[in-house]
This record gives sequence, C-alpha cells and structure tokens, in this order.
Amino acid sequence: MRSRLLEHISSPQDVKALAASDLPLLCDELRQAILENSAAAGGHLAPNLGVIELTVALHRVFDSPRDKIVLDVSHQCYAHKALTGRAAAYLDPDHFGEVSGFLSPRESEHDLFSIGHTSTSLSLACGLATARDLAGEHHDVVAVIGDGSLSGGLAFEGLDNAADLKSGLIIVVNDNDQSIAENHGGIYGALAELRATRGATPSNIFRAMGFAYRYLEEGNDVTALVAALEELRGTDRPVVLHIHTTKGAGYAPAERAPELWHHVGPFDLETGEKRKLISGDVPRDGYADITARHLLERMARDPRVVAITAGMPYVLGFTPERRAQAGAQFVDVGIAEEHAVTFSAALAAGCATPVFGAYGAFLQRAYDELWHDLCLNSAPATIIDIGASVFGANAETHLNYFDLAMLGALPNLRVLAPVCLEEYLAMLDWSLDQRERPVVIRMPVGAPLERPDLAPAAPATFDTPTYQVVREGSEVAILALGGFFTLGEQVADALAEHGLRATLVNPRYATELDEAFLRDLPERHRAVITLEDGVLEGGWGEKIARFLGTSGVRTRCYGIPKGFPDRFDPQELLARCGITVEGIVADILGMR
Amino acid sequence: MRSRLLEHISSPQDVKALAASDLPLLCDELRQAILENSAAAGGHLAPNLGVIELTVALHRVFDSPRDKIVLDVSHQCYAHKALTGRAAAYLDPDHFGEVSGFLSPRESEHDLFSIGHTSTSLSLACGLATARDLAGEHHDVVAVIGDGSLSGGLAFEGLDNAADLKSGLIIVVNDNDQSIAENHGGIYGALAELRATRGATPSNIFRAMGFAYRYLEEGNDVTALVAALEELRGTDRPVVLHIHTTKGAGYAPAERAPELWHHVGPFDLETGEKRKLISGDVPRDGYADITARHLLERMARDPRVVAITAGMPYVLGFTPERRAQAGAQFVDVGIAEEHAVTFSAALAAGCATPVFGAYGAFLQRAYDELWHDLCLNSAPATIIDIGASVFGANAETHLNYFDLAMLGALPNLRVLAPVCLEEYLAMLDWSLDQRERPVVIRMPVGAPLERPDLAPAAPATFDTPTYQVVREGSEVAILALGGFFTLGEQVADALAEHGLRATLVNPRYATELDEAFLRDLPERHRAVITLEDGVLEGGWGEKIARFLGTSGVRTRCYGIPKGFPDRFDPQELLARCGITVEGIVADILGMR
Repeated sequence: MRSRLLEHISSPQDVKALAASDLPLLCDELRQAILENSAAAGGHLAPNLGVIELTVALHRVFDSPRDKIVLDVSHQCYAHKALTGRAAAYLDPDHFGEVSGFLSPRESEHDLFSIGHTSTSLSLACGLATARDLAGEHHDVVAVIGDGSLSGGLAFEGLDNAADLKSGLIIVVNDNDQSIAENHGGIYGALAELRATRGATPSNIFRAMGFAYRYLEEGNDVTALVAALEELRGTDRPVVLHIHTTKGAGYAPAERAPELWHHVGPFDLETGEKRKLISGDVPRDGYADITARHLLERMARDPRVVAITAGMPYVLGFTPERRAQAGAQFVDVGIAEEHAVTFSAALAAGCATPVFGAYGAFLQRAYDELWHDLCLNSAPATIIDIGASVFGANAETHLNYFDLAMLGALPNLRVLAPVCLEEYLAMLDWSLDQRERPVVIRMPVGAPLERPDLAPAAPATFDTPTYQVVREGSEVAILALGGFFTLGEQVADALAEHGLRATLVNPRYATELDEAFLRDLPERHRAVITLEDGVLEGGWGEKIARFLGTSGVRTRCYGIPKGFPDRFDPQELLARCGITVEGIVADILGMR
Repeated sequence: MRSRLLEHISSPQDVKALAASDLPLLCDELRQAILENSAAAGGHLAPNLGVIELTVALHRVFDSPRDKIVLDVSHQCYAHKALTGRAAAYLDPDHFGEVSGFLSPRESEHDLFSIGHTSTSLSLACGLATARDLAGEHHDVVAVIGDGSLSGGLAFEGLDNAADLKSGLIIVVNDNDQSIAENHGGIYGALAELRATRGATPSNIFRAMGFAYRYLEEGNDVTALVAALEELRGTDRPVVLHIHTTKGAGYAPAERAPELWHHVGPFDLETGEKRKLISGDVPRDGYADITARHLLERMARDPRVVAITAGMPYVLGFTPERRAQAGAQFVDVGIAEEHAVTFSAALAAGCATPVFGAYGAFLQRAYDELWHDLCLNSAPATIIDIGASVFGANAETHLNYFDLAMLGALPNLRVLAPVCLEEYLAMLDWSLDQRERPVVIRMPVGAPLERPDLAPAAPATFDTPTYQVVREGSEVAILALGGFFTLGEQVADALAEHGLRATLVNPRYATELDEAFLRDLPERHRAVITLEDGVLEGGWGEKIARFLGTSGVRTRCYGIPKGFPDRFDPQELLARCGITVEGIVADILGMR
C-alpha cells in the first residue's frame, strides 16, 4: 500500500514530528493498512480498528519506551506495532506476517511484555509504576484496557491495587461496549451509565475506588484524544481516562457485526466476504457445531442442562441464534473463567447439569477453582477442554497443550481424551448423565474423525479407567492418547513392516491409569511407548513411566518438552521433538 | 460450658422456635462457647466473633438447608455449626475438635460445600440460584462475604455476574473494615464512604453495578439483623445487604488487635495470653522471621528490593513494625494472589527485585499469572512457596503440597527445594542477585535445620541444575528432595546396616533434571528411589522415572497419592503411603 506518512514512521519520534493537522491522515493510513493486512492474513480486526486514534495519540503524547505503555491482551496492538518501527509489516504484502499478532519484546523495545491473555494490564502497570517509584525515576505509565477485559478478576485486583498507588498511573478504559461477544455483568451497567451521562453521574465506580476520572466521548477523534492525554501527562496520582470508542471503527461490516469481526481469517475487503471463519462463526459439522446441536437436544429434554462459556460462546458452537434458542440454559459469564468454574461447581451441587467450554490456555486461569471448588467438592460438572493440541494454536501466549500437566494432580477429576467423534459424544453423554465427579473432556482438534471401530460399546460408561486394546501384540506396546492415537497406529503399521506386531492401545483416560492392564504389560512386552499431544513434563506419559518404573520394562515417553514456542509449524515442532513415525520406529527398534 | 439455650439447639428449627427476646442470650452463649472452645483448641477466633449475631439472624429468618446459605472462606462458620446440630462441639470440652474449622458437607447438610479459600461465595451462590431457577424452584440463596474477601478477583467476577441475575440472591457484605491484616485497595475507600454515610452516598459501587442495596450500621445487633433480613427474604432480584460488624466483637483483646486474633492457637481466656502463635505473630528464629530480617537487610542496601504478600504479611515475617520499617519496600496487595504474581513480573521487568511469599495452596490461584506473566516473560521475580509439605497444614482445603505438580510444567521457571537453612539463604541470595528467570523457593517447614555440611560452596550459584551427591555409593541411589532429604538419609543409614552402601543425593532442583548425573546413574546402580514431600502424580519423581525409563534401571517414586485427606496426622498419612524408613528399606531390598 502506498502511504504519504506511515511509511516514513520508523519510531514514535516521527509521530511527534508530524504537524498536528496530519494526525487524522496518519490514522486513515493506519486503518487502510490494517484492513489490507487483515484482509490478506487475518487477525483481531475489529478491536484494532477501534484504537487507531488512541494509539496515535498515545505515541504523540508519551515518550515510549521511556514512558511505559501496556496494552491489555494485545488485541489492540497493530497500530502500536506500525508506529514503532514495524510499519512495513502492515504496508507491504511481502512483509505481511513478519510480526506476530501479539506484543512481543523480541520484536521491539516498545513491547514491554509478551501478552495474549486478557485482564493483565492493570497489574503490570502497577508493577512498572512501583518499580519506577522505588528507583526514584519519573516517567508516565499508561495501561490501556478494553471494557471486555474488565470482567476478568485479575483486572479488578489490579484496579483495586492501582487505586492505592501514591504516584502517577494512567488507565485508559477503551470502552466500545463490546467484549469478544456481547458484554455480561454488572460492571457494564455501570459503564453504560457513565457513557449515557458523559461521565457526569455521581454513581462512578472509578471515583468510588479513589481514582481521578475523565470521560471522553470522542474516543475515535485523534485531536480530542491528544488533548485529553496531554492533560494527564505527568500526573502524580492514579487516574482513569474513560473513552468511548467504536469497535471495528471505519469498516462498515465490522461496525455492524463486531463479534463476527473480532478475530477473522482472510476476507474480501470490498464485499466483506470471509474466506476463513474464526470468532463468532461456527463452521458446520465441526466439533463445536456438533457439540452445540447435541447440547441443545439435551436441553430440550432436560431444563437443567446448561452450557457456559467465558466470553467466547462460539467455542461450544453457540451462535447468537443458538444462544437465543437455549435461553436461560446458556450462560456467557464474560471473560471470567474463575467464576465459570466455581459457578459450574455450584450448579452441579444444585442438581443442574453444567457444561463449561474453554480453551486449555484459558482454563489455566481457573486452576484453584478447579482444585478447591470443583474437585474438592467432587461436583459433577463437565468441562470441554478446547484446542488442547500442538495443532490447536501456535502463538506462545495461546499454547493450549499444557492442560494435562495442569490437570493431572487434581483429585476426584476424570480427564478423558477421545480419539474420534463417536468416543467424544459417548463421553459427553456419559458425563452429563453421571453425578459422581467432575469430568474434563479434551475436544479433539481438527475435522471430526469418524472411527466406528473405536466407538465404545453402548451404553458407554467411563466409571473405571479401562484402556481400549486396539491391537493385541507383543514385545512393544504403544499407548497413544487422544489426538496422537492415529500417530500410534501409523507407528504400529510401520513396525509391522519390520516384522514386529506391537500392541496398540487407546488409553482414553488422560490422568488416571488402568493399573490392572499396566501390571500385566511387562509379561509380554519389553518396551512401552507413550504418545501424548501435550507437554511432556508433568504429563500423562510420566505417570505411566512411574507406574512401570519398578517393573523392568523399558518406557519411553513422547510429548512436547516444556517451553514457549512461538508461531511454529506443528509438524516441524513435532519433528524437533522426535515425534515422527520414522523417528519413533527407529527409537523402538533401538530399544529392543 | 452450661447454657440455657444453646445446648437445646439441635437444628435451625430450634432457633426459629425461640422467643425473639431470647436471641440476644443465644448470641451471648454462642460467644462464650466459641471463646472457651478457641481458648482450648485455637481457631479463626476474631472473624467468628464478629458474625455471631448475623448467623443467629440468618438461621432465624431463613430455612436452611432448603434456603441456601453460603459462607465465604469458612472463617465465619462456628456459630453456624453450633446452630446446625453441632453445639456440643463448642460446649463440651470432651467434644471439642469433633468438627472441623471449615464448612464440610460430610458433617452436615447445612454445609453446602467444603470451603477454605476466600472469595468463592458469590460465584457459588450464583450457581445455586441459577440451578434453582432452571429447576423452577423457589427458595432464598444467601452469600455472606467479608470485606477482606472482596479484594479477590473471583469475588469481583462473582459480583459482576450476580448483578446480572434475573432472580433473587442476597449478598451480605460483612464489613468489619479488616482483612486478615489491614485492608488494601480502592474498594476499601468505597466501603468506608458507604459506612461513613450510612449507605447514603450516591457513590455506591453496588448500586452502580445494578444491585439493590441496604445498609445496616448495627451489624452486631441481632434484632436489627433479623428485621433487615426479614425484609429481604423472598427477594426476586439480586440485593446487597451491607452490614457493619466488629471483628473480634465481645472479646476485648481481639477487638483491640484483630490481626493478632484472626487465627489463634490456644490462649488464656482471662489474660488473653497465647500459648501458641499463629496469625500476625512471627515466632522468633523461624523461617519467616529469618526471611524478614534477611530481606530488611537487603532492602537497606538496595531500594529496589520489595517484599510482597497477599493478605498475610506474617508469612514472610513482616510484623506491623517491620512493615513500617520497610515502608514502600513492603507491599501487601490484599487477598489477591493473581495480582501479586503479575505485579511481581512487572516489578522485575522494571528492574526492581520482588519477593512474593504465599502458601502453596494459595499460589494455586495464580497459576495462569505464573504461566503467562511470570514465566512466558521470564521475569526475574522470587516466589517463596510456604508450607509446601504434608507437615504444612492438614485441612483438606489447605493442602500446600500440590505445588510441585502445579509448577513442574512451567517453562523458564526454576524451582528450588532447600533442605536446610544454609541452602535456603544461599538460594534466596542467588535468586535476588540474578536477572535471568523467575525462581520459586520452597521454604522448608518446621524449625530451621542447620546443616553446614550441605551448605553450597560460596559464592553459591544455581545457574545449572546440578545435584549434590552427599554419599557416593552403588547399587541403589536415593534421590531425596528438600524436606524429605533427612528421610532419605535415614533410609541410607538403615540400608548400610544391611551392608548396602547407597548413593544419597540432595537434588535441590525440584522440577528440572541434572541430566548428566542421571545419564551416568545406571552404570553403577540397579535401582533408584525418589522421595518427595508432595503429590505423586505430576510431581518431581515422575520426571526422574520418565528420564530413566529407557535405561533399564528400576525406579520407584515415593510421594503422596492425589486426594484430599482431611484433619490427618502427617506421620499416619505417610505410613499409609508406605513412606516410612522401614517400608522404603523393605521395598529397596525387594527390588535388588
């Protein structure tokens, strides 16, 4: 894309050097560049469109990286990246994709943290401000947080502590009256009242907590934003600047349907037609779609079945139409995974049948609620664990495959890892029908695999950890969990070509052991292989290795070593970990 | 203790049957019983004294267990227990200790959940109310939450969602203007303004979020409380009843020093002299005391060293005097572990040197912040992991020994498990001096053990996982981590009596492996034993078993199987797990 201004911006200093009258043009160029980039490569389009003016104003007024700017969740970082030495990545198709979609200190000194989870910015800003004060330094610290991120408990903890600071901190509340989907929670009534009164209502949660407070209605007016920020620059106390922005600003399809344009794949800029569906859309006959249809059927029969999501209804397949159909039987709690889990535990205790769906990386936010509310109380809630695979997401902030290591020590919890659609639905039905314990089901990643041969016999129960032996063999046993079952099958096939008929097992249970089976294994096997689509340390395979440790059988566990790989190709990552059919076969032949 | 009323109360129905004029006497009797019980057995005295009148009023007005009463954190459950069939446990010294200090569904149908962590009550009440609505039932749901618990993010998520309920829910905010120690955070200014205006200020965060709101100044007046609750009974919308209570009400020493009387051991009821120190007090020359003195010394030399706690300053030894001495270099964030971790990550990024101390069970609340803010950003913060041992706490809600399983998969994190005081201080100093990565140090439990022979050579560095080989032996290697090192030493001694000179190792690193050492082990050893004072599944030993799995050496891991044991004797628990010198020696002799 040709630009008059943006291509000459190599640092925030260049933004400061522009004539004030040029700032609107810079915003236009940024908007066009972000649109063209996202149309080609996809991205978090709507939130980024809403903060272009704010970002220009921030870099006009403040002096990054001396002044510290923290952007919550990174869903609003494209303009920031373009203004901090990375314009080419948005302007030039040859450079599209050179920068990540998230803040990354490896890319720039203006990106202070790797950030991809919501609600962290206020605590981070508090820490930076306190570090500044301890060092006797003087600079501004600015946090930018969207209204959607305010529903997360950490954001409240940060807000609560920020109010107590005895020094300067600027919190920009970027209020577009929208989370990923629509907002839920009492705080949004409070924000709406502030917007409706242009900040004048005496019922002001920010002032009540002790903040100075300014309201700016023109949140997409760069001149007004510069003036407002100039006024706050150098503040010696914590202050909230509440600005009203438009999600998707400047692109009509996104303004009309911000949920569908929150996170998009490539699309046609003219027509708004998308070539790949991401947020808001539910691809037909994918696992999410099938899950929603299945749950809606059960809801129709049982008014106590209730589906829950935390800000992302589409992960369980709940489109706006299906949410309407489910009525009170669908609850989106906003970005509040902790609440979602504790709420689910109480729903179960109250004899309802809750199903909470979340990405593995976000379920992490509720670890203590899983431990203390769900598992300690052995509450029969079902959690659908989404994207938990190296094929699930490849941003360092969004690795969903730490789930089994996180869940493995939780008492009373059953974690099931289905291979195929038939197993997934059988496990879901069993879980919804039982009242004994909490259950996590790892939703397979990718297109549903149909494998009637692996389907459990009806009526399927998962009351006792029992492995499914798919092939009886000897010498070598391959225990291949969930998404890696087909890999195990390929390894078994390859071994057969070497004349070795291996035992092939679908373990199904991802944190508990079929001890009877394992106890007998060493009788006819000299080597055992575990394959898991998850982090190696603390994972499922290590439990097998520990159990078999005293037996004399040799055990080798395959999984992903802990680390934060970023923007990786899953197959390449697996190859680097030695997880290929050839590699595993060679290892096995070497172990005999 | 003799009582006129309390000993005849066998269920809430008996509270309802009393003359209204008898309720103050019932409160007096409850107070005397709780005082005598706590004087003999210890307990969470001050918070329980503050809610006696509220509890009588709740059981007078509502119809538990049909109506659902949820008490946050259980620090206010003694009167509830005494009124729900468990009076003898508070009245009769022969029955003291028969009930636990926490809500427990195993004890009574009036205890709806096992609860010991703060800030869960609002989400639980939301779930119960929603389950009621889905079932088409009609009863009241009441949550009681202290002001101290409101600083936890989950409480905010619950509040935010409760405000959105389209049906009845009563939230009693039990405001005694005190957390475990003093309160911190902007919300306490908001509560103070409400108290100062008797609820009349227009700046009302509860109303701003959409709640109906009532204020009651006489929070320790049972008649006023009954009247207020009667008014709210059967509400069809979410309502907050904000009551002003006195922490420690009715016992002068506790009213004067509520932090010191939050959680007490046995004491003399007449003089207030304590026979065992718990909350607020810091036993001289214990690990907490030594830690605070050490940190204060470092703070005096370096203004960027900062100690952080989440509502429990005393866990790091910070008495009120030491907090005053540290000034801005000590920060209590309130009960907000998530914020504490993310705040620490940013302090580290801002070149400060943060040290956050928390019990293992409460560090669980910050799992995602550890993963995403601290470890992904490899922020050089130090976390002191407290009580992480079967000897640390024996309530099912407070098991601190799940920490290694929780931390084991976190990339970039170093977890150190010192055996003795010398190691602990060397690790602390090393961690404070390095800028590479986050470090968790497991503070040993119990009286400091001095073992100069185990002290690392100065200057001690922990840059590379390297095990300390304490005795060179053969055939059997005992890898005994942290608090279980002395057990390993005893096992080695006992084996020596059998003529077997075992290798004895102090691994020091609790989640990373000394691969070079382990690779050489099978050469001279046929069996390896791991001993860890932590949960077995997902723990440290399994990593050793996995690493050695392909070697042919036999490995046996000792740890605590996952579960929620309650009110256990640690030695008995260990014996049940086969973790005794005799048991382990017998296992080893059988493995050869």
